[in-house]
Amino acid sequence: MTVTTESTSSHPLFSKHEKTLRQALDTIWRRGYWSAYPESPSPRVYGETAAADGKAAFEAYLGADFPLDQPGDRVATERSPFGIPLDVRYPHTDPDTLVARASGALPAWRDAGVDARVGACLEILARLHEHIFELANAVQFTTGQAFVMAFQAGGANALDRGLEAVAYAYAAMTRHPATAYWEKPAGKRPPLTMTKTFHVVPRGVALLVGCNTFPTWNGYPGLFASLATGNPVIVKPHPGAVLPLAVTVRYARQVLAEQGFDPDLVQLAVEAPGEGVASALATRPEVRIVDFTGSTAYGDWLEANARQALVYTEKAGVNTILVDSTDDFAGMCANIAFSLTLYSGQMCTTPQNILVPEGGVDTDQGHRSLAEVAAGIAAAVGKLTGDAARGVELTGAIVNDGVLDRLAEAADLGEPVLDSRTVEHPAFPDAVVRTPLIRQLTAADGDTYGREWFGPIAFVVATASTTESLAVFEHVVGERGALTASVYSTAEPVLDAAERAALTVGVHLSANLTDGVYVNQSAAFSDFHATGANPAANACLTDDAYVAGRFRVVQSRRPV
Amino acid sequence: MTVTTESTSSHPLFSKHEKTLRQALDTIWRRGYWSAYPESPSPRVYGETAAADGKAAFEAYLGADFPLDQPGDRVATERSPFGIPLDVRYPHTDPDTLVARASGALPAWRDAGVDARVGACLEILARLHEHIFELANAVQFTTGQAFVMAFQAGGANALDRGLEAVAYAYAAMTRHPATAYWEKPAGKRPPLTMTKTFHVVPRGVALLVGCNTFPTWNGYPGLFASLATGNPVIVKPHPGAVLPLAVTVRYARQVLAEQGFDPDLVQLAVEAPGEGVASALATRPEVRIVDFTGSTAYGDWLEANARQALVYTEKAGVNTILVDSTDDFAGMCANIAFSLTLYSGQMCTTPQNILVPEGGVDTDQGHRSLAEVAAGIAAAVGKLTGDAARGVELTGAIVNDGVLDRLAEAADLGEPVLDSRTVEHPAFPDAVVRTPLIRQLTAADGDTYGREWFGPIAFVVATASTTESLAVFEHVVGERGALTASVYSTAEPVLDAAERAALTVGVHLSANLTDGVYVNQSAAFSDFHATGANPAANACLTDDAYVAGRFRVVQSRRPV
Repeated sequence: MTVTTESTSSHPLFSKHEKTLRQALDTIWRRGYWSAYPESPSPRVYGETAAADGKAAFEAYLGADFPLDQPGDRVATERSPFGIPLDVRYPHTDPDTLVARASGALPAWRDAGVDARVGACLEILARLHEHIFELANAVQFTTGQAFVMAFQAGGANALDRGLEAVAYAYAAMTRHPATAYWEKPAGKRPPLTMTKTFHVVPRGVALLVGCNTFPTWNGYPGLFASLATGNPVIVKPHPGAVLPLAVTVRYARQVLAEQGFDPDLVQLAVEAPGEGVASALATRPEVRIVDFTGSTAYGDWLEANARQALVYTEKAGVNTILVDSTDDFAGMCANIAFSLTLYSGQMCTTPQNILVPEGGVDTDQGHRSLAEVAAGIAAAVGKLTGDAARGVELTGAIVNDGVLDRLAEAADLGEPVLDSRTVEHPAFPDAVVRTPLIRQLTAADGDTYGREWFGPIAFVVATASTTESLAVFEHVVGERGALTASVYSTAEPVLDAAERAALTVGVHLSANLTDGVYVNQSAAFSDFHATGANPAANACLTDDAYVAGRFRVVQSRRPV
Repeated sequence: MTVTTESTSSHPLFSKHEKTLRQALDTIWRRGYWSAYPESPSPRVYGETAAADGKAAFEAYLGADFPLDQPGDRVATERSPFGIPLDVRYPHTDPDTLVARASGALPAWRDAGVDARVGACLEILARLHEHIFELANAVQFTTGQAFVMAFQAGGANALDRGLEAVAYAYAAMTRHPATAYWEKPAGKRPPLTMTKTFHVVPRGVALLVGCNTFPTWNGYPGLFASLATGNPVIVKPHPGAVLPLAVTVRYARQVLAEQGFDPDLVQLAVEAPGEGVASALATRPEVRIVDFTGSTAYGDWLEANARQALVYTEKAGVNTILVDSTDDFAGMCANIAFSLTLYSGQMCTTPQNILVPEGGVDTDQGHRSLAEVAAGIAAAVGKLTGDAARGVELTGAIVNDGVLDRLAEAADLGEPVLDSRTVEHPAFPDAVVRTPLIRQLTAADGDTYGREWFGPIAFVVATASTTESLAVFEHVVGERGALTASVYSTAEPVLDAAERAALTVGVHLSANLTDGVYVNQSAAFSDFHATGANPAANACLTDDAYVAGRFRVVQSRRPV
């Protein structure tokens, strides 16, 4: 595929954004590096006033009714990990109204066609990009991410993931022609001839169930994949992280209304505490698609109960690092430490188990004992978190009490490597900040390390050998799943064995990361996020399987 | 995409068949006419001895142990609708053995790579094509199809559908590169660079649950889609139509063994009467894909219980014809009559409900009353079936007693239009042959016409108007599903309304068929079969969604 700049569509928004779309399409089939939305919040990129304007827009939401024209009383459920008062009051629209309005909006959106829908989706992404600082603040103060990370992961990279989903959807919807001519020879009789029309038809109403930590990054792929393929989307945020998705819904509705579409194609579904609106919506017969990121328990519930829908889930996993040997011991320790520290380990991709042979490993600094490997990683974490002001810009804050509870529970497991510290945030005195905890276990402690300890909790697991490390890896990930895995080795046979094990249990593998790429980061258009091939997720962000089922082709044919 | 003749692969079988594959790929994205396997059984196409050789090969199976090197005692369950003794004895391999052998065969098949697997699949299709007369006889004498239909639908067209699935699988697996180079600018520092490898990984063991009427046509898409994407396939035929799939498994295993692959990549799972082996296999944790064609009850059971697997089902539906007006009354009646008569209406695509306004319809022969429309269709059926010798070559025989029971039950419903007749088959005195039954109902008889009466049973349903016909169509198909629908009208607004209704309920629509294309026929590479958008099926044969979930991409990356 080549990148063209001349538009092939008569839809103005499609033409306006077609170059971006073509570049996205080119990149997903090439899997190289590209980003449509700059991830540096620098004034040189976004202008001198952008940061302040975005902050002001964010602050205007606080303690107020959120500007969204949906019916219902108002409800506020968020509590900021940074300890600032939020009290944003959202319209509390009941499920019947949400489903009825979404269903009513479907036919015209379907009939608008691929280019109109894709053009509108691209315009929504552009509109959100105009408000990226506002989004970043919303992500920061609901999830606990530090600002730069909230800007990047919650803003620029989330938009890239949304664009990627639109590109996959566009490719899938246009792979077949809209019309075709068919002529079958019939011997001496005239040939049989038919004209055929192929309509893209959406599945129905889509439900997005957002998560607490990455509401936009994990939410945008499903939102835009469903919307582009013709499905109205009901966006049900996590009660602790409503604002990022409320902002998203606000601007999506704004664009849709401007283009003459029904804004109810994208609606916000907030809930009062304990209301369980996700379950009520997910089991409605009209809801035919559910996208979910969150706990294994609720993901399994959705898969078991939302049987009328296609259910895409990303759940818990046990991410694993295998340490066999390295030619850059300092780089390895620094790289692992960064992955453990970033957002206090509250990423679905953060490593948990670091498998190290009990006899130690060969490195460029000579043989290093197990204790020295553990100490090396601990020291690197200490370096990243030693200065409070710099440290909090990496760790951010703790998203909710569940993480604190786990951290307390893990504090006495096995042997100590590195204790978690409570840090006073220089700017937000009420912020809940913790540094990573590292404990040392043995291969026999599978009951402990064999499940997810979401948060700033990591285990150095002593194994008999790299062979046992591989066996532990295969066993745990095969049983519990994982979103990421990585291996450090200077031996090709070990790298090959790790890659083979990764294929067997279906997890993406990174090898010998010692520089500025981290195992918990995946790049839109190039890296797949999750595989759908192990228990941690039943889908991948984003591949053809992620979009192909969201629409159907209905054909009509008639003789010429 | 352009069709190239120069091979791009180092795999000999891939190169051997690449031109065929490229032509298939070109056609599926163009949706024009093409067939890889000639559907005329003429000696001018297949040679003077092909028909006799195939018949002899078929007859050699009868009353004997089927030549398949699988363990187990032998079991015979088939009874021919043509009344000839079959008594083919198949190896009765237990589920544990089948699953263990399939699982054991997986890694090497996965590691062989896309070209090797696709090459082998194409060779299997070519091998089956060499045995097309043998296959046609097997289909004829187990399903009850007349010979020419068995040759076409059960042989040539089934092979086309298999090839189509291989083409979709190949396209899906090769859309992403196998390796990529990624380079991200890092300001003044050197760029971050990674090499990435993308592995296609199968889901696991696949199970094909075959049907009684079209074991090959409905079975090959799932079989070849799963196999090409790396999944070993356990083929579980309907107890009444084992031979066509046993022949398929035989030659598939032959090709696999010749190529050095484990023949257990394709295994036959037969069952003793009442054994329920499909349920035992479908719920095994190792089984990750199930393809099924058959009853709604069992399809629903599979969807509810084979929860560890992707389940693709084609179930019952209520196919509908809307008659509004026509400029070719004779052509319309003849076309509908042919559809009702072909294989005694035992196609999942055979129309059941013919909705006609009670005031009659305008035609090229002037206004025709409801009674005249019904009589016109009945007369055309009579013409096709009046001569026994010619008639049986259309109707074939009745596949099983369930059809006879329904035919008896339907005989007194509503008002008579055309009675079913028992016909003596000139060549097979014990064949069970019946001509179509047509009864007249009213729109109020939804309890009767609102469900499937599989077999040679059709209803002319009197409606108040075409508007009511459309409402009945939407209601019944929305609730019960359909695989086909058609409309006759000379008025564009009616055709548009029918097309809109078809989109709403997600069913493929044919308009004004009066010549040699019939609503119950769909052409590989051009027509989609089923939509997945109504209760009659949750999948389409074949589109991207049908293949995309059968494999996953597992990525590995390392710094350059």
